[in-house]
Amino acid sequence: MRPQLSKASAATMDSFIMGLVEVAARPGMISFATGLPDNSLFDTDAVSRAMAEVMSDDPCGALQYDTPTGYIPLRERIAERCRRELGFDASWEDVLMTSGSQSCFDMLGKLFLDPGDRMAVENPGYLGALQAYSAYAPEFIGLDMDEDGVDTDQLRAAVSDGAKLFYSIPNHQNPSGVSYSDPVRREVADIIRDSGCLLIEDDAYGELGYAGRVGRTMKSMVPGDTVLTGSFSKTISPGMRVGWMVVPEWLRKTAGRTLEATCLQSNTFCQRVVDRFLADNDYDRYLAGLRKGYLEKKRVFLDAMEDSLPDTMRWNDPQGGMFVWLRTPDGTDAMRLYEKALEGRLVVMPGHPFHVRGGENTIRLNYATPTEEQIQDGMRVLGSACRELGYRRGR
Amino acid sequence: MRPQLSKASAATMDSFIMGLVEVAARPGMISFATGLPDNSLFDTDAVSRAMAEVMSDDPCGALQYDTPTGYIPLRERIAERCRRELGFDASWEDVLMTSGSQSCFDMLGKLFLDPGDRMAVENPGYLGALQAYSAYAPEFIGLDMDEDGVDTDQLRAAVSDGAKLFYSIPNHQNPSGVSYSDPVRREVADIIRDSGCLLIEDDAYGELGYAGRVGRTMKSMVPGDTVLTGSFSKTISPGMRVGWMVVPEWLRKTAGRTLEATCLQSNTFCQRVVDRFLADNDYDRYLAGLRKGYLEKKRVFLDAMEDSLPDTMRWNDPQGGMFVWLRTPDGTDAMRLYEKALEGRLVVMPGHPFHVRGGENTIRLNYATPTEEQIQDGMRVLGSACRELGYRRGR
Repeated sequence: MRPQLSKASAATMDSFIMGLVEVAARPGMISFATGLPDNSLFDTDAVSRAMAEVMSDDPCGALQYDTPTGYIPLRERIAERCRRELGFDASWEDVLMTSGSQSCFDMLGKLFLDPGDRMAVENPGYLGALQAYSAYAPEFIGLDMDEDGVDTDQLRAAVSDGAKLFYSIPNHQNPSGVSYSDPVRREVADIIRDSGCLLIEDDAYGELGYAGRVGRTMKSMVPGDTVLTGSFSKTISPGMRVGWMVVPEWLRKTAGRTLEATCLQSNTFCQRVVDRFLADNDYDRYLAGLRKGYLEKKRVFLDAMEDSLPDTMRWNDPQGGMFVWLRTPDGTDAMRLYEKALEGRLVVMPGHPFHVRGGENTIRLNYATPTEEQIQDGMRVLGSACRELGYRRGR
Repeated sequence: MRPQLSKASAATMDSFIMGLVEVAARPGMISFATGLPDNSLFDTDAVSRAMAEVMSDDPCGALQYDTPTGYIPLRERIAERCRRELGFDASWEDVLMTSGSQSCFDMLGKLFLDPGDRMAVENPGYLGALQAYSAYAPEFIGLDMDEDGVDTDQLRAAVSDGAKLFYSIPNHQNPSGVSYSDPVRREVADIIRDSGCLLIEDDAYGELGYAGRVGRTMKSMVPGDTVLTGSFSKTISPGMRVGWMVVPEWLRKTAGRTLEATCLQSNTFCQRVVDRFLADNDYDRYLAGLRKGYLEKKRVFLDAMEDSLPDTMRWNDPQGGMFVWLRTPDGTDAMRLYEKALEGRLVVMPGHPFHVRGGENTIRLNYATPTEEQIQDGMRVLGSACRELGYRRGR
């Protein structure tokens, strides 16, 4: 006999993503599938130096327990960056350090969601976050996305219907690459302000806008109604799991208690390393280098798409982040393209799992992970797969 | 307007512990309060070497995402140790890497507990774990502890009453220092076997038995009904947050999904560092050194208690771990002793918060954190505080 799973646990979605990480790691595979940043852009020497300094300055302190909500000097640095770059006031006490953004989503779900509570999400939306929230068994309300961002009429209706949370990626959304236009940002702010619906603004890709930040943060427009989440996973290292959330003052104490209940504290050793990395290096210049690297990768990738894919396929030209959103012809099932590509040892990520409804003919492609050679080879596999499935040029 | 907290979140206990970490960090404070291991026993040089090697061997891989359930070579090493030292069979796939033990407790609560579900806990029990479970709003059934361990009649009744989980620290319990006797272990195994109640065996202190392990693991006696949790926080470094759980095969997939939903993956960089630490050093010899250090600390601490405390106070002689359990005279409130000691700049941890019921006259003392000088000075403060409160010698 075994104890029964909780309702919430039974409701937890399977995620396609991390399974694909393992598939993609098999020898000989080319992956356009996962959300892995480009290894070759990590500044591993600077990270090594930061580690050595942390271990030489205060080795015992670095390895010991620390404040539950995180290493204070790093939180001060993040708060300072919020004031300078993100357009809103924050103190270090508003910044809670977490094990990557994912654990922010988990904690925010835990803080607010009872089974059956309503939650607005983008459709498509980031699958990892949807999985985190699904563990609290909410009723998801999917809000359609177009090239200007989220459908604000649908958001207004969802908030009227009592949605407690709205999870949003306004910049270079994962999976679609879309950023909210300024009018959409203003309208979202008007809807959210004092509505009783808390906005979760996932800013994981905000620093990866190729021409700088693409718009004001929502947090700067409705600070008391927004939790902004951030991460060094796309900029310094995902394996170190250093993320954070900036919460309104009314949420500080409760969120801190939930963080402590969930993990006592996140990894303060790696927080010290990141703090030292930021102290010793010109981070803005470093970010500029990352953006340049991703922009070049994107150009190579889009050129290869142009060369290899039939013209019945459509895709966008993202202005930041690491994803291209591909549509197969209307009425086709992109899962078949996923399977066909896999036969050619190319892994792509079907778009359907990112949707609350629809999206059967979509695919998310990550241009950050593969090398240029892998991009050329992989795109030829994808083009052949399209043709084998009858998605012919000029059909 | 703000969204309402979830029921579970509203039910989350405040923890006295981590607040005390901040109080204890104030200048001039002596702390016997927290669960911090002894800094001076960390092998910081070996950790530094392990880091440098990890960063020189595969810097990009070390900083990148990895398998959601953790770095496989470390999991193989832990499984091998389970087979060799802990008396049960395990494969690396049974071992899931987490952000310290605390996040195991969180995930197990999430996996099994709906609000109002019954859960058996030791009384007193480890406060951090109680806080983690409290976030899922179970009904706690407290099982009294004596010098042989948990009250098995109460456990049998709790299981009959439908308890889904039993959280237990059979070795050198936090807070009481008690270990289960062999007959109690056998009886617990008989009650749990095929009962539908899952045993959570917290083995955080198992390696810190001064004369070796004090008894068989429960996991070796009822493997299919037990999740064993472990951590390098008490042995190598708490700040790196490297913990794990060994789950029965039937729980692997569901627990992996919950781990992924909660945090995508825990810190694989630090898992590589720990793996390298274990590969390069004689871990058994290292543990022997730790045990020797803690045993010496305990002797100094108990001698100081003998010298400074009135004989109306009673305490035990723990055979491992890092805690002494102190009782003030029957009918007194140890919270007053906490407050009085604080006036003398000594922080101790009241025992009452560790209890589901009772325990007003108990205090948990940690002899690992303070230096020998701090032990002498702190104990004089504690003795004076006792006398000021009228807990006089020979009263």
